[in-house]
Amino acid sequence: MLLTDLIGYCAATLTTASFVPQAWHTFHTRDVRGISLGMYSAFTVGVLCWTVYGLLMDAWPIVVANCITLVLALAILVMKLRYHQA
Amino acid sequence: MLLTDLIGYCAATLTTASFVPQAWHTFHTRDVRGISLGMYSAFTVGVLCWTVYGLLMDAWPIVVANCITLVLALAILVMKLRYHQA
Repeated sequence: MLLTDLIGYCAATLTTASFVPQAWHTFHTRDVRGISLGMYSAFTVGVLCWTVYGLLMDAWPIVVANCITLVLALAILVMKLRYHQA
Repeated sequence: MLLTDLIGYCAATLTTASFVPQAWHTFHTRDVRGISLGMYSAFTVGVLCWTVYGLLMDAWPIVVANCITLVLALAILVMKLRYHQA
């Protein structure tokens, strides 16, 4: 059981933290041509749904992980929309 | 309870399917400069951990959703490595 929990925490940390280097890369380079607007639109709404799901289930690990991911995905989406027009 | 399940299925579908437009965009444009290698490396390992977690928990919705995401994230990672050198 301990190993399963450990793998779960590793999974949550990696998939959440992975958006940090993307947000930094986009902020730093302002190169958004290779980033899909469709992906970040769908992904941001999806993560918002996960957050609501976590709240309804009273599952705080889901809420916390998805709140962090939501901020990062939203930041990338806003940069995509902003730098695309620049 | 039905609403909670519905929101959960919406969340899983959106976050999984969101990688389809990114994989297609990258395959079509071959523009990988704006994509973070750090993100897709960490994300792919994270999704692999989620798949193992789902198998250990005997939670097939987690396994199925993450297997699909794994294939898409791995395809984007391979394209990032391949087109970056081209």
